[in-house]
Amino acid sequence: MAKAVLTISSKNYGAWALRGWLMCRLAKLDFDEHVIPPDDPAMKAEMLLLSASMRVPSLDHDGIHVWDTLAIGEYLHEIKPKAGLLPADRKARAHCRAICGEMHSGFSALRSSLPMNIKAHFPGFKVWSRAQADIDRIEAIWNECLDTYGGPYLFGDKPCIADAMFAPVVTRFITYDVAIDLPCVAYCETIMALPAMKEWVAAAEEEPDEIDELDAEF
Amino acid sequence: MAKAVLTISSKNYGAWALRGWLMCRLAKLDFDEHVIPPDDPAMKAEMLLLSASMRVPSLDHDGIHVWDTLAIGEYLHEIKPKAGLLPADRKARAHCRAICGEMHSGFSALRSSLPMNIKAHFPGFKVWSRAQADIDRIEAIWNECLDTYGGPYLFGDKPCIADAMFAPVVTRFITYDVAIDLPCVAYCETIMALPAMKEWVAAAEEEPDEIDELDAEF
Repeated sequence: MAKAVLTISSKNYGAWALRGWLMCRLAKLDFDEHVIPPDDPAMKAEMLLLSASMRVPSLDHDGIHVWDTLAIGEYLHEIKPKAGLLPADRKARAHCRAICGEMHSGFSALRSSLPMNIKAHFPGFKVWSRAQADIDRIEAIWNECLDTYGGPYLFGDKPCIADAMFAPVVTRFITYDVAIDLPCVAYCETIMALPAMKEWVAAAEEEPDEIDELDAEF
Repeated sequence: MAKAVLTISSKNYGAWALRGWLMCRLAKLDFDEHVIPPDDPAMKAEMLLLSASMRVPSLDHDGIHVWDTLAIGEYLHEIKPKAGLLPADRKARAHCRAICGEMHSGFSALRSSLPMNIKAHFPGFKVWSRAQADIDRIEAIWNECLDTYGGPYLFGDKPCIADAMFAPVVTRFITYDVAIDLPCVAYCETIMALPAMKEWVAAAEEEPDEIDELDAEF
């Protein structure tokens, strides 16, 4: 069986790439990365939210090509059932999928007005009202999980796909200096302390700035 | 165990409601419907795409509250594994989840400029270019599935969650008189002929017009 390959975009700007990559790491999948150049037209369209839909990241494993981040998460859970990508308890699992679904299809104001940009820091960034409504909902989601399952991760003592889905929100909150309550600050610190996150952030910081034009086009 | 309850919005305008309801029917779940009045502020915000995220439809079953349409689909597949909501073959299942994911998070131009409106018909409706790109991608998705699995449904001889996810696209294509190729026309006819779809459409046509103001606000 050929080694698995995860196709991703930028590590600095690619929020979906981070989600899919982190899921693969949490699943302890042995995989190579294939990074699509930022000047690839299809990739650029996806980064600018101009595509019909998202087809990166994608995973090639065992002759199967799977795209869409949630589908990758479910696939990894099937091939690595012991990795705990989804909570073992049915009720918690349904809750996990529900908030992953919210992140997958929602929060468009946050995603478009506070795009992921790990290298940058904008102290005092002004959050407009619709993005603030998104942030308020995310705080409510996180606090409900941390209260229900005891933390430090969203569903208890180990990270799962929900933590991967919200990881780019964590980096946005840091980049844009977003004011959040203390339990959420602690949760952000927990996520940023994951070895896989440290590795991703280090790679993002090393990434050449050749796609800064993407930023300028927003 | 109390009977399951599916909370939905309008049958004429609620595309996510249709997806969740159709999944419950395909799963042969015994459930009651709880219809949120269209003047409910939260519901109105969701219909106008102004909410942070979608929390309707939602399903209450066996003490578990699950929202988000994909999460409902996965939950139904867990409690009704024999219903075939997901394809039995791993590769087909990954493919199914990938296109469900595309529908779940993508096609924003189609969704905002051709909102579901089962009762209406707009012959000669002008589709603008970004919505046309969405339509092109949907035709490609459908044709690939119909070619690979032989139809008449997306993954073969019985409907699954992917058909439920694309069902509101089918009604939009009819409402807005969208030109699509012959295999896709045949697929639309297959979906509209499902007894559950006929039941939904009949209910949509009977729905009072009290929320036409929603239309006017777009």
